[in-house]
Amino acid sequence: MLKSFGLALATPEGERVLFTIFVIFVAAKLAAEIFERLKQPAVAGEILAGVVIGPSLLNWVAPSELTEALSEIGVIFLLFLVGLETKPADIFRVGWRATLVAILGVVVPFIFGYLIMLAWGETQIEAVFVGAAMVATSVGITARVLGQMGLLSLEVSRIILGAAVIDDILGLLILAVVSSMAKEGGVNYAQIGTTAALAIGFTLLVIIVGARAVNRIRTRVENLKVGQSYLVFGLALCLALALVASKIGVAAIIGAFLAGMALSESAEGTDMPHQAEAVTEFLLPFFLTNIGMQLKLDALLNRSTIILALIVTVLAVISKLIGCGAAAWRMGKKKAAQIGMGMVPRGEVGVVVAQIGLSLNAVDAAAYAVVLFMTVATTLIAPPFLVRLFKGETRGAEDPELPITQIS
Amino acid sequence: MLKSFGLALATPEGERVLFTIFVIFVAAKLAAEIFERLKQPAVAGEILAGVVIGPSLLNWVAPSELTEALSEIGVIFLLFLVGLETKPADIFRVGWRATLVAILGVVVPFIFGYLIMLAWGETQIEAVFVGAAMVATSVGITARVLGQMGLLSLEVSRIILGAAVIDDILGLLILAVVSSMAKEGGVNYAQIGTTAALAIGFTLLVIIVGARAVNRIRTRVENLKVGQSYLVFGLALCLALALVASKIGVAAIIGAFLAGMALSESAEGTDMPHQAEAVTEFLLPFFLTNIGMQLKLDALLNRSTIILALIVTVLAVISKLIGCGAAAWRMGKKKAAQIGMGMVPRGEVGVVVAQIGLSLNAVDAAAYAVVLFMTVATTLIAPPFLVRLFKGETRGAEDPELPITQIS
Repeated sequence: MLKSFGLALATPEGERVLFTIFVIFVAAKLAAEIFERLKQPAVAGEILAGVVIGPSLLNWVAPSELTEALSEIGVIFLLFLVGLETKPADIFRVGWRATLVAILGVVVPFIFGYLIMLAWGETQIEAVFVGAAMVATSVGITARVLGQMGLLSLEVSRIILGAAVIDDILGLLILAVVSSMAKEGGVNYAQIGTTAALAIGFTLLVIIVGARAVNRIRTRVENLKVGQSYLVFGLALCLALALVASKIGVAAIIGAFLAGMALSESAEGTDMPHQAEAVTEFLLPFFLTNIGMQLKLDALLNRSTIILALIVTVLAVISKLIGCGAAAWRMGKKKAAQIGMGMVPRGEVGVVVAQIGLSLNAVDAAAYAVVLFMTVATTLIAPPFLVRLFKGETRGAEDPELPITQIS
Repeated sequence: MLKSFGLALATPEGERVLFTIFVIFVAAKLAAEIFERLKQPAVAGEILAGVVIGPSLLNWVAPSELTEALSEIGVIFLLFLVGLETKPADIFRVGWRATLVAILGVVVPFIFGYLIMLAWGETQIEAVFVGAAMVATSVGITARVLGQMGLLSLEVSRIILGAAVIDDILGLLILAVVSSMAKEGGVNYAQIGTTAALAIGFTLLVIIVGARAVNRIRTRVENLKVGQSYLVFGLALCLALALVASKIGVAAIIGAFLAGMALSESAEGTDMPHQAEAVTEFLLPFFLTNIGMQLKLDALLNRSTIILALIVTVLAVISKLIGCGAAAWRMGKKKAAQIGMGMVPRGEVGVVVAQIGLSLNAVDAAAYAVVLFMTVATTLIAPPFLVRLFKGETRGAEDPELPITQIS
């Protein structure tokens, strides 16, 4: 194979890359357009585009090192962008409620998942893994829907974002617990304590000192000679914190979100968020289609597996609605439903949990396919409901300065 | 290995991707900043950053499927951006001069390369390959330097761009000729004629009807419901024409450049070029560092190879200055030098020629290393001279409406 200078002069390698990128980008955007015209959420269209062009149906493209990498950068930049619209104070103000939403949104799905698997006659350890895989919300989907509706500044949106960050840390701890159960037959509390301390410490550190540190060096960044210095600085900070988050075991997207938050104040009035949006607009289709491409329809041909997959999906939806909804109940039925539905989409964390279970022989191929189906299905189910639940809400409908106690 | 949902929850795979992207982006931008402060061109800094972090020195990152792909998209979007600043009429007005620059800029380097290799005692076929590898200009580097100086609208810039497009087509034909010489011992005229007709036909077709077609559907594109519809349309058209160009054997970047040109009129006054710039700003470092990462310093340890590499590099510079300079001589010494130096950087096409030679056993490893060195060295040599040669020029210094005959 001719490895060229990064550019293909008709090398098969370079042409394949171009073809992959072209097909994914155009299929996703075409599906988004069709869904928008049908008054359905664009994200759902883009995920379905992945199902259609992926191995399940047309097989034009398959997940590869390249699509996985672009997908990863895509969702990292998406969360960075969401962070840019979120001030640390906004999250602090909803801190307790978000924590409660996160905790109940973790406990209820875990119990539901655990019990259904036991009732289905599976082993104890498999039940634990599937329960754990039902825990963590993939906030990217909800953030994208709310962002496209221009509703990220609503109080409920902030609760969802805050809860998703905490939920991710909880998911990480549950992953550590179930892994050590499967590997060592018991729980290594010291190691899990360290992981928890690192994750919480990193998150709080960035939230508390991040914005101040960024504000202090802002003029120096603007005086850099490199072109578009503020955009370059923002992207570099996003990648750096994503990498650190990943190194200490929190999801990379949490680091990216925190980087965005640290920059949210100083970026106001600059062109940077708008430019970061352009970069994200190009990369995000790779994330969304990649979700759809993961679906393995052939693994679901077994009738009993299909039924289990449907039951697990329904429970995944209901359990978040009950858990998160209960935590937000005092805010009123509508907001409770908005928050609950906002936390429904599952994603990467659940799949990773199931993969680890698979690699440790704690989970079989059928249960793995069930988890995959559940993650794709929840990302598809939530957006249309979110659009309905948030219809009529407008930017700044709530006074952002009003203390939370008066609102709830 | 855990293949995750495109997102890494501490999977080694996802972390490696993040690390690669972070290191390349930050190293390139840091080098660009240092070079700007030293009043040197940022591109040279970014290419050198690739040498430093690449296999030749620190070995933090190595060319991989991912870096090659990002590099490819990066240069494609760069040429798209350059195209956006170039109206078809601008190129037509300088058409004959650009053609002359391209032809002499191909003939002289070929002869120089061919003769030095024969003089060095190499075989006839190797001399032909090295000569062919010295032919094609890599317009990305010059376009980036002129773009950063805000000088893309100068008449000489347009001549360089036009000549680079023609030069690329000529390079493609020469590649076809030398390949068939090495493979079949003779030249397959019918096949080469078809390739030439396709390449020229495609280029002219896009230049002539592209802009009109785009203008006609512009309102429909703006009325699309998908977010940022004009940016999405632009990127899709860029990828589509790059793919078509690649399919018919012209370089993908030419397709991207033509797509940009087709959009140049209708994009005026919109936000799209600014947004496409943000995407490029993120991806371009991967192209520039990738050039540096290709350098194989260890293959140059042989003293005789080093001397040959230096001689070939000097001849590569001189031959373009002489060939292109002669073609532009009537425009005055300074403009001739600007155009000649603008055509000096070699890149992907030369490397591909040498790789094909290597795969056909027409070129040995030493000659391949010499070509690699020449391409990297010419991309590093040209920018500082370009900055000096273009110093003092300003945007719109020449009346763009003045016919070419009156200027020269």
